Parts: sequence; C-alpha cells; structure tokens
Amino acid sequence: MQTLTSFESMQAWANATHREGLRIGFVPTMGFLHAGHVSLMERLRPEVDRLVVSIYVNPLQFGPDEDLERYPRDPEGDAAKCDGAGVDVLFMPPDLYPDGFVTSVAVDRLTDGMCGATRPGHFDGVTTVVARLFNLVRADVACFGEKDFQQLAVIRRMVRDLAMPVEIVGGPLVRDPDGLAMSSRNKYLTETDRERGLSLHRALFAMRDAATAGEKRAEALLAIGRDTLTVDKLHYLELVDAESLQRIERVERPARALVAAFLGKTRLIDNVGIV
Amino acid sequence: MQTLTSFESMQAWANATHREGLRIGFVPTMGFLHAGHVSLMERLRPEVDRLVVSIYVNPLQFGPDEDLERYPRDPEGDAAKCDGAGVDVLFMPPDLYPDGFVTSVAVDRLTDGMCGATRPGHFDGVTTVVARLFNLVRADVACFGEKDFQQLAVIRRMVRDLAMPVEIVGGPLVRDPDGLAMSSRNKYLTETDRERGLSLHRALFAMRDAATAGEKRAEALLAIGRDTLTVDKLHYLELVDAESLQRIERVERPARALVAAFLGKTRLIDNVGIV
Repeated sequence: MQTLTSFESMQAWANATHREGLRIGFVPTMGFLHAGHVSLMERLRPEVDRLVVSIYVNPLQFGPDEDLERYPRDPEGDAAKCDGAGVDVLFMPPDLYPDGFVTSVAVDRLTDGMCGATRPGHFDGVTTVVARLFNLVRADVACFGEKDFQQLAVIRRMVRDLAMPVEIVGGPLVRDPDGLAMSSRNKYLTETDRERGLSLHRALFAMRDAATAGEKRAEALLAIGRDTLTVDKLHYLELVDAESLQRIERVERPARALVAAFLGKTRLIDNVGIV
Repeated sequence: MQTLTSFESMQAWANATHREGLRIGFVPTMGFLHAGHVSLMERLRPEVDRLVVSIYVNPLQFGPDEDLERYPRDPEGDAAKCDGAGVDVLFMPPDLYPDGFVTSVAVDRLTDGMCGATRPGHFDGVTTVVARLFNLVRADVACFGEKDFQQLAVIRRMVRDLAMPVEIVGGPLVRDPDGLAMSSRNKYLTETDRERGLSLHRALFAMRDAATAGEKRAEALLAIGRDTLTVDKLHYLELVDAESLQRIERVERPARALVAAFLGKTRLIDNVGIV
C-alpha cells in the first residue's frame, strides 16, 4: 500500500492509472476507521483494479459550533486497517484545497430537511469535497455507507445532475453487537450515554416492526419512535420516501426512518428501511 | 460530422471515445456561430483526436429580464460552419438537464464584480452548465473566447478548485473589420446602435494607448475611456488585474480593461489587455 499526502501526487497517480485503463474504486472517509468503513472497502475490492481510500477531516462540512477540532484521529490504526483490506493507495493530505479556493457545489431540495436543516452548510461542504475528490482520484466507482443515508442520496443526485463519470454504490449500515450504529463519534460516549444511545436503533426498529405488522400511518409510526427515544436533544425523527427524502403520510412505497440526536455532547444518527 | 441531440447519446459517444484513449477537444457555445467561435474550433482542431462543439442556449445563465426567448438561432448555418471547421460531433440537445435537476456549481469572489454584479446568477448558470458539459463530453481540453474574459477566469478557477481533468485554453477575441467585437447579439443592433457601439472598443483602445504612452493611474485611464463612450446605459467600465480580476489603482502588472453597455435593447461587452 502506498500512502500519498499531497493532492498533486494523488492526481498524478490517478492520471497515470487512468491512462492504463485500470478501474479505480474509491472510499472517501474522515478517518478513525471502523468496521463500517472496512465493509465499504471490502465491497469494492473485488470489482476494481485499484482501490483508493482517502482520509481527510473536511473543514467545509463542519459548522462553527461543531466538533471539527476534536474529531477523533488515528492515522496509524487507519493505515493498518486499509492495508488489511487490500487498499492500494491511502490518500491522507494535510490540506486538500488549492490557494484561493472559492468554488462550491450545492444540491438543493434533498438537503432541505433532516441533517440539512440541523447542520446548515454541511451538505454543501460534503458535495464540494466529494466533487473535488472524485476528480483528483479519477474514481470509476465510489462507495458510501447507508449510515449517512441523506448524504448518499445527495451524492447520487449530484453525480446524476452533473453527469459525473462515476458509479455510486451504497454499503449497508454496520452495527456493534449491542445494535448501536458504528460511528467514529461513538468513542466520545460515556457508558450511560451509550446505553441511552441504544434507544436510537430501538426506536427505528420499533417503527419498522409496527409498519411490517400493518401500521401504515406515518404519525402513528413516528409516535412509536418518539416514545422509545431516551436522548438529551432530538434533532429529528423522520419518516420519508426512500428516494426523494420527502416526508410521507403513509407507507406505500419503500420508506426510510431516520433519527439524529444528542447524547451528552455527541450527535448520533441512525436509519432503517421501512417497507 | 455526427449530430447528437440527447445527453445520453453524447455521453455514450464520449465514454466510448474516451475508452479508446483518444483526446477529446470541446468548444461549448450557445449557437448563432460567427468567426470568433470558428477560431476556437480551429485553435483546438490540430491538437485533438476528436472535436466536439455543443450548441445549447442555457436558461440557467439568463436572468428573468434578459433575452433568453429572443436569443438568435441558426441551426443549419451553425452545422455548416462546424462541418467546415472539421468538427466530429455537433451536440445540440433540446434539453440538457435530467428530471429533478437541483445541483449548482458556484465560483465566489471572481464573480463579485462586472458581469457578476450586473447579471445576478449569470455565472452560477455558466459554471453549472459547463461542469455538466465537461463530464458529458469527457473533454480533455476546452476552448473559451477571451471575449468573455471574466467567464474564462471563472472557468479556469472552477477547474482548478474542483481538480477537473480538463485543460482550459483561451482564444483571442475576434473583431469585425470596423472593430466591433464579434457577438451573436450584434445582429440585434440597428445601424445607429452599431455605429455608437464602436465606441466600446475605441474607449478600450484609448485606455490601452494612454497606458502604453506612460499613464499608469487607473482613474486617469478610466476617465479617458468614459469620455470616449457613447452608449445608452453603461453597465461597467473597469480596469482590473488580469488574473485576480480585482480593481487596481495603478497599472503595474498585466491588467485588463473591460466594458459592458446597452445600445438600445442590446447589451454588448468588450475587453482589451493593458500592459
């Protein structure tokens, strides 16, 4: 495994690899890798010639009061995990943007609700960095986790709208044995916070089970979810169409239940499919 | 020469051509082609394997009170000119955007002044359509005229910021024998408007000549330009750094004088290098 630390060297490698006609797979991350990230690498590995993982904690996608400064880091552990997953290039630049950078990519509508409403500017930061990374890496296929379900929908939309020559693959959310969705931010949780944080997936699963048992009314399902949650501050609990991310009144087509909440100072998200 | 009219067929052609390792040159236009456009095609022709010209009057870059509806069109004449210039693919789609299109690309700062200030939203429309076209055509090199000098600077910035794998080439502004900068909009001009429109390049050339003769103070040069103009409504007359497009007080590095003004209902622009 090669480690590259400048965007110039990343671009040079990608252009040379691209000219050889090799298929490049890409998993962009912010590091502090866990089994969820590794599952994305394993998902792409068999279908590409070269696999690239980037680690970059992107300032553009953090709000002024968010946890940019204390976002957890573990470069050595990350490198070992990537190496173990058969990664060819680990791209970990200290800086990603050129001098005088002033360009942004934004996706409207899909970013109105949920994490878009509770984290203003977040998705613009995500789409901007991902657009730049796709070009730097010359990715033919890229994998994003369904853990960030809204992000995955936003990136699919951007790729379609701008006709980007990259295929987007979603990877299933990975849970710890106790059911908590894996996240780099879980390390912040105290034992009590973590215990109460388990109410996120319990709420979502309760909604899913009720829908499967025949309850199709969104309001009733959301009430079931809310009754299950034991969190400090609920950012949102939503039931939306799985594709458009618009709120629904009844479950008639594939839907998704999504939640975001604070446990202590830590913001957790989770989601589950409702059919 | 092939004519393609759907973005799906354009993308399929581009992907196949790209896979063969052929170098694709691209000249995006809004049609009603003149010698200025043809000069861009001729500039790229010798250095590419395949040359693509697009004709699309992009609604995103027109303001609500602008001339989208009456923008001149001449598809047959355009096709003959492209054929004569050795174009391989003429891409003229009735619609360019997919259903539910909600993505935009924006360049900040460079778009604050001049056409950015007088045509709000214009450059966001330009960068968005160009980003999509670059991907659809898989352009390796694209040529834009210096006639739209600010646009050229904005596109160079977007390409650098998003690391787009395309080289940008600027083509010199082309003038009619009387000195008027060639533009598809010149056809709107009455004879009197055209005569008075000649004051645009006369003003710019007077500024350039005064600078060459030793006048380096921007205010003095702008006064010379303003005294020469005979227009109905001046949008702007500016003297800026040729790279950053920021206003300057003295000519010390390569600078550019730019003007935009209405003659009757027609908005004309022009610019010239000041050294």
